[in-house]
Amino acid sequence: MALSAVLRPGHVGLRVLDLDAALKHYRDSLGLIETARDAQGRIYLKGWDELDWFSVVLREADAPGMDYMAFKVLNATHLARYEAALKAFGCKVECIPAGELAHCGERVRFDSPTGHVFELYCEKEVYGNGMGRQNPNPWVEGLKGMQAQRFDHCLIYGDDLDGTVKLFREVLEFDLTERVMEGDLMVGAFLCCSNKAHDLALIRHPEKAKLHHVSFLLGSWEEVLRAADLISMHDISLDIGPTRHGITRGRTIYFFDPSGNRNEVFSGDYTWYPDHEPITWTTDQLGRAIFFHDRQLNEKFLSVVT
Amino acid sequence: MALSAVLRPGHVGLRVLDLDAALKHYRDSLGLIETARDAQGRIYLKGWDELDWFSVVLREADAPGMDYMAFKVLNATHLARYEAALKAFGCKVECIPAGELAHCGERVRFDSPTGHVFELYCEKEVYGNGMGRQNPNPWVEGLKGMQAQRFDHCLIYGDDLDGTVKLFREVLEFDLTERVMEGDLMVGAFLCCSNKAHDLALIRHPEKAKLHHVSFLLGSWEEVLRAADLISMHDISLDIGPTRHGITRGRTIYFFDPSGNRNEVFSGDYTWYPDHEPITWTTDQLGRAIFFHDRQLNEKFLSVVT
Amino acid sequence: MALSAVLRPGHVGLRVLDLDAALKHYRDSLGLIETARDAQGRIYLKGWDELDWFSVVLREADAPGMDYMAFKVLNATHLARYEAALKAFGCKVECIPAGELAHCGERVRFDSPTGHVFELYCEKEVYGNGMGRQNPNPWVEGLKGMQAQRFDHCLIYGDDLDGTVKLFREVLEFDLTERVMEGDLMVGAFLCCSNKAHDLALIRHPEKAKLHHVSFLLGSWEEVLRAADLISMHDISLDIGPTRHGITRGRTIYFFDPSGNRNEVFSGDYTWYPDHEPITWTTDQLGRAIFFHDRQLNEKFLSVVT
Amino acid sequence: MALSAVLRPGHVGLRVLDLDAALKHYRDSLGLIETARDAQGRIYLKGWDELDWFSVVLREADAPGMDYMAFKVLNATHLARYEAALKAFGCKVECIPAGELAHCGERVRFDSPTGHVFELYCEKEVYGNGMGRQNPNPWVEGLKGMQAQRFDHCLIYGDDLDGTVKLFREVLEFDLTERVMEGDLMVGAFLCCSNKAHDLALIRHPEKAKLHHVSFLLGSWEEVLRAADLISMHDISLDIGPTRHGITRGRTIYFFDPSGNRNEVFSGDYTWYPDHEPITWTTDQLGRAIFFHDRQLNEKFLSVVT
Repeated sequence: MALSAVLRPGHVGLRVLDLDAALKHYRDSLGLIETARDAQGRIYLKGWDELDWFSVVLREADAPGMDYMAFKVLNATHLARYEAALKAFGCKVECIPAGELAHCGERVRFDSPTGHVFELYCEKEVYGNGMGRQNPNPWVEGLKGMQAQRFDHCLIYGDDLDGTVKLFREVLEFDLTERVMEGDLMVGAFLCCSNKAHDLALIRHPEKAKLHHVSFLLGSWEEVLRAADLISMHDISLDIGPTRHGITRGRTIYFFDPSGNRNEVFSGDYTWYPDHEPITWTTDQLGRAIFFHDRQLNEKFLSVVT
Repeated sequence: MALSAVLRPGHVGLRVLDLDAALKHYRDSLGLIETARDAQGRIYLKGWDELDWFSVVLREADAPGMDYMAFKVLNATHLARYEAALKAFGCKVECIPAGELAHCGERVRFDSPTGHVFELYCEKEVYGNGMGRQNPNPWVEGLKGMQAQRFDHCLIYGDDLDGTVKLFREVLEFDLTERVMEGDLMVGAFLCCSNKAHDLALIRHPEKAKLHHVSFLLGSWEEVLRAADLISMHDISLDIGPTRHGITRGRTIYFFDPSGNRNEVFSGDYTWYPDHEPITWTTDQLGRAIFFHDRQLNEKFLSVVT
Repeated sequence: MALSAVLRPGHVGLRVLDLDAALKHYRDSLGLIETARDAQGRIYLKGWDELDWFSVVLREADAPGMDYMAFKVLNATHLARYEAALKAFGCKVECIPAGELAHCGERVRFDSPTGHVFELYCEKEVYGNGMGRQNPNPWVEGLKGMQAQRFDHCLIYGDDLDGTVKLFREVLEFDLTERVMEGDLMVGAFLCCSNKAHDLALIRHPEKAKLHHVSFLLGSWEEVLRAADLISMHDISLDIGPTRHGITRGRTIYFFDPSGNRNEVFSGDYTWYPDHEPITWTTDQLGRAIFFHDRQLNEKFLSVVT
Repeated sequence: MALSAVLRPGHVGLRVLDLDAALKHYRDSLGLIETARDAQGRIYLKGWDELDWFSVVLREADAPGMDYMAFKVLNATHLARYEAALKAFGCKVECIPAGELAHCGERVRFDSPTGHVFELYCEKEVYGNGMGRQNPNPWVEGLKGMQAQRFDHCLIYGDDLDGTVKLFREVLEFDLTERVMEGDLMVGAFLCCSNKAHDLALIRHPEKAKLHHVSFLLGSWEEVLRAADLISMHDISLDIGPTRHGITRGRTIYFFDPSGNRNEVFSGDYTWYPDHEPITWTTDQLGRAIFFHDRQLNEKFLSVVT
């Protein structure tokens, strides 16, 4: 257990096949707010209740997937401390100058044993949640679609799970909240830098650098139903749900963006504290761990990644 | 459109393979209240918010299924009127004397073109919902399991769907609320005698006299989640859900009793009025009609009946 | 107990001091749909899930209040039967020709012992709920404000409560679902023509022909919270709530339109059946009967009427 | 902004006039679990989803109120660091030996400028939440009453608000999440050591060492309604609610234990991050800040403390 100066998942860079179709999906169906475009044609979005300028960056590319996942760090002192520790751990570290992503300060980019690219940064301009910081309302009217509140976490797939878990626990001071064990082998790991059941999750998988899903937070199980209805009304490809996870207790639904990147919207995990013993799931209970209601493994859910 | 003197589904007689296992299921998992046993060993139960003495009768037998579904009629005058009309329609009608089912008055039993046995009655003793009729609380504490409020409807399968629909519409003055059409052929019919989306539903099927499911009402989508969790916690065989139906808009989950009879618990259809035009579903949209979220036909859901 | 050929509350005519302010309130805050205006300047609205052309008619006037409350009847035969029975009961009956209200057939207008004006009609053009009757979605996107589903009931105040209750029970075949008794005197009556806890409610009061509130249906307790938030966000005058009624079990919030007419939005009463014994509340429990949580009479709620 | 090694509110010591009545209230109505009694007659309880042995300690006394509020610290190193810093700040610090409260390690007790007694500790035995840490269910059956999940925070009243806020921010590294300003004077302060809208709240008040309320977490707005119903069904003295706070966005209801200590159960504030700018409320908006729906100050709520 530790206190991490990593605050939260700050943004994710996603590759999409068709930028217009992706924008329609993330803005009109998920209900993210478009906040910027840049000279490279990238589109920036955020959940309505996020304060920083963006949390999703869409880039048109030939194949879907995740370019990078970035975490916001408390301040420059901690950022420098983590940068040094990442180098000491053996990561390949690169500094991306401020402004390369619009409205964002310098980013410390690093690779990981599972082949995923991560970033740390401590500065991003404030866009606001539309309510101001003086005498605010509790929510804003006129939101679209699922009205996703914020980018919450990613689940990624990769080979050297132990290595990336070690990196996040030892260097970035994340907690292990839950884990899936196949005998002595950890096949799933749920990590947090805060009081959530997960800020990052990993599944062991033969290929490097795969994305399973990008997840966004909703406010209630009733909003999960509303999202489920919209998935059908907007003719979005449903993966699975609405249902409950055993792992994290989340109430959830999964679907695909037009490029095949899997999304989740969910509500309602528990409050994690670093003095808690991690929860362990054994693979003989894996069906129940993943989908608590039907308790069956779903090949498509387990194997389709981008 | 019509005004029916049939009030509601009043009880259903179910065959179960093991009475103790069934009692445990219907009482401890669905949360029905056990209200009586009789000399034949039958067990009587009711939803907590039903006032009459029972709505489910369990009978141990060699094969699962539905013995009969009974409807309560407003009074003896209407009961006699319906009895005559059933005979005129050509039904085989039999009078079961008062007391054959405990606490229940005389029942007019009749067959139907799909081979199902139905009953009408107008007298059943009041058991109450535990709150009295003077200055009552809105609900009672100490309920078990899913806390099902009442027996709501059945979905039955049979060959001569047109015949049974004609019987319920013309003789018993039910409304057709929704229907599924395969070209000019009606393959699904949803019928009501009240202001609900359905009191009885039928699907066209080669065999006679089959039961698809018995349905019980819950109070909210949050209670559907609670039921879904309990299905897993009580190790009940899940069929499908939680999800939404296109037909009836119901928010639902399906599962099986220990004998293989399918149950549904659901919340939230709309208010039907007899001046409404029925809703029509075409079979090219059947996936969406049945499971609005995943929009796919499910062979097990469509073909497993008792 | 009876079977009524009265289907439901069909529309209410409301007097407002400023038509623009009223439109803003009923359309943008309650979320009703504007469906027509007429040569007299009246504005017609409906809840999104109502099929008929309108359920609220706003008329600019010098004083707020209710002009009339109208009920839809099953067909012309029953309408003629009720017209004769109203005359036999001693009501002053007047026929308003078709088209006097846009899209509405002939209305049979009658007075009542409490001085309220009511109407019956059996024809109104269908506007639809925006989803069609073939393969419909469960709800429509783009609704405003509280997204009220339908006009549900009125609570009216008047002197000869017994007389108006007798009129609705004996002539129009309504059920008494709940009543408030001060000793042998009925001081509150809840009446229905369907399976709801109330389609019309009355409170004994020294003045004739007063309106306590017009009520609109929401889909859940979560939507009641959303409405409560909007009341504050739109700077609407709150009366009381969110809370629960003992009477009807409804989950509710009360507020005022800009002219001082009280509105309610609510969810979740129970299903009434005509074989149920009415619920009786005694005035020593009146606080709990009206506001189940704080169990205290509220002078403003009891005495402010239009 | 800071990273605090204080994890959360760990327990609160409450004085009650009658221990049996208090137990009935906290166990059967709030739904806390009784986990211990000690030789002094004190009763220990916890919310069902808390892992440590207790979070509420009831002690019979002549006057109601709060004896102390304790926070759990990450480990002994941080505990020693805070102890030294508290002394340096000028607090009177006392060490209570392990075991003085059953199942609890050594506590560092300190006074504060508002006269409240606080404690820090880093060791408490694990009792568990009834589901274990291997393949757990998402919740447990058989809970009582409101089914409170955990002790969440206290709101305290005192004179030197600036002093106690300075103590928690500078010594214990709490964040200021929201504040109420009367011109330049801070009259309300909301502080957190985690990602919640508040772990401790203070209101400026002429007397020292007063308790406004002890708050417990529920899982949803629907559970807040259930709690509200139980308050009436159990004949508990309601203070105010159900309603929404502007401050923290919480969905809430307030009531009194049999000794007059105010309790809150609530759901649903937002996720706080230490890079967020605090929210400021101005006293001209104080009604809306406290009770977002009725936007009116409530004298009893503001002035009744124990």
